[in-house]
Amino acid sequence: MTRFRLTVEYDGRDYIGWQRQAHGASIQGAIEEALTSITGEPAAVYSAGRTDAGVHALAMPAHVDVVRAIAPARLMAGINARLRPQPIAIIAAEVAPPDWHARFDCVARLYRYRIVNRRAPLALDAGRAWRVSRPLDADAMAEAAKTLIGQYDFTTFRSAHCQAENPVRTLDRLDVRREVETIFIEAEARSFLHHQVRSMVGCLQLVGLGAWTRADLAGALEAKDRSRLGFNAPAAGLFFVAGRYKG
Amino acid sequence: MTRFRLTVEYDGRDYIGWQRQAHGASIQGAIEEALTSITGEPAAVYSAGRTDAGVHALAMPAHVDVVRAIAPARLMAGINARLRPQPIAIIAAEVAPPDWHARFDCVARLYRYRIVNRRAPLALDAGRAWRVSRPLDADAMAEAAKTLIGQYDFTTFRSAHCQAENPVRTLDRLDVRREVETIFIEAEARSFLHHQVRSMVGCLQLVGLGAWTRADLAGALEAKDRSRLGFNAPAAGLFFVAGRYKG
Repeated sequence: MTRFRLTVEYDGRDYIGWQRQAHGASIQGAIEEALTSITGEPAAVYSAGRTDAGVHALAMPAHVDVVRAIAPARLMAGINARLRPQPIAIIAAEVAPPDWHARFDCVARLYRYRIVNRRAPLALDAGRAWRVSRPLDADAMAEAAKTLIGQYDFTTFRSAHCQAENPVRTLDRLDVRREVETIFIEAEARSFLHHQVRSMVGCLQLVGLGAWTRADLAGALEAKDRSRLGFNAPAAGLFFVAGRYKG
Repeated sequence: MTRFRLTVEYDGRDYIGWQRQAHGASIQGAIEEALTSITGEPAAVYSAGRTDAGVHALAMPAHVDVVRAIAPARLMAGINARLRPQPIAIIAAEVAPPDWHARFDCVARLYRYRIVNRRAPLALDAGRAWRVSRPLDADAMAEAAKTLIGQYDFTTFRSAHCQAENPVRTLDRLDVRREVETIFIEAEARSFLHHQVRSMVGCLQLVGLGAWTRADLAGALEAKDRSRLGFNAPAAGLFFVAGRYKG
């Protein structure tokens, strides 16, 4: 048996999310079906992050065990051929140590959120960004974002469906930068709570609009109360960018 | 009567191109229909460039005359509401001088071509880039591109359907740069022949693969012979970026 490390790119728009579920098409399910059709074996694919419906990935680390002998390049080409024309692609495949785990060994996860700040609807970025019509002050958002960096109880920024036992997370980075009409928000942490990035982005947007001050954001964090959440940003703007591993 | 300058963003994937034609959906036709439904008048929209089927635009300048009195912001919102859910958006609208012409007054057109140079199929960029599997030498492409800058008879790089009387064009810029796995090629000129950008990109790709030398490219240009064209790159990777005007 060989453990393979896979890197997956996908457009999550038409999927119920990464995780296989009974009620719809998932990224995990699509890859597992492609694998089984190649190897004839049941397949269980584990990923660094279980993205929600509509969330995308540039390079999601994952792993799978395969009994049948097969070269990584052939495995990658075979999965990609079977995934076509779905918007999911294995962009890298390599043999990993038998105990390497895409989820548990991941020491840092990087997400990027994209806001397009303009009145016009999105033609090229539909389903890939959140359009905010009213002008946003990206500098105020960048300044307020610092409030959330560090180790905190992020209960306010956590979905009611979050299964984590502990709501404390350490946010290492939360950068906001504007490029013409696009605002990029990058968040990095060892791990995130369910909906944490989208919830932080939703509240930063309120700061950008001038509806919230930096102190309002700090108050929401300190309250540790989901009802104090200002806004949960839509899934379309969120991209899982990369996972980092030791060694 | 008021002349409006419009700026249009679109994903050309599902269209027969900019120009209205009898046999399919066009960008021009979609905008004209939206306009007529707002104003009750027949509408004729002129653009800086008439892009081909599958070619996209970030900011295509266009103009239209409207008899009915209407504010630019309302016109823009009205067109966008009627275009939905098509991937076409008016991103700016303003009143223009009555003799301003989107096509004839345009003194420079900028196109960008995007190659993704990797083995894996495109999940996020499907329909928006040309995937080239074999490794490309972007430095060699950038060096060879200089051969095409200047005033030449570009007959070799011209579609058989090109309607221009004169095949001489002045290419002001042809930049090639790599960002990780993506190669961007930017071309700027007062005007281009039909298929000129895609034909130049197709031949630069041959240089990138090592199949053509810089001298082969120069020879093809000097031959002024379409049969010497190495390759015509697919429409999916091409974006009309912007048009420039005097004053």
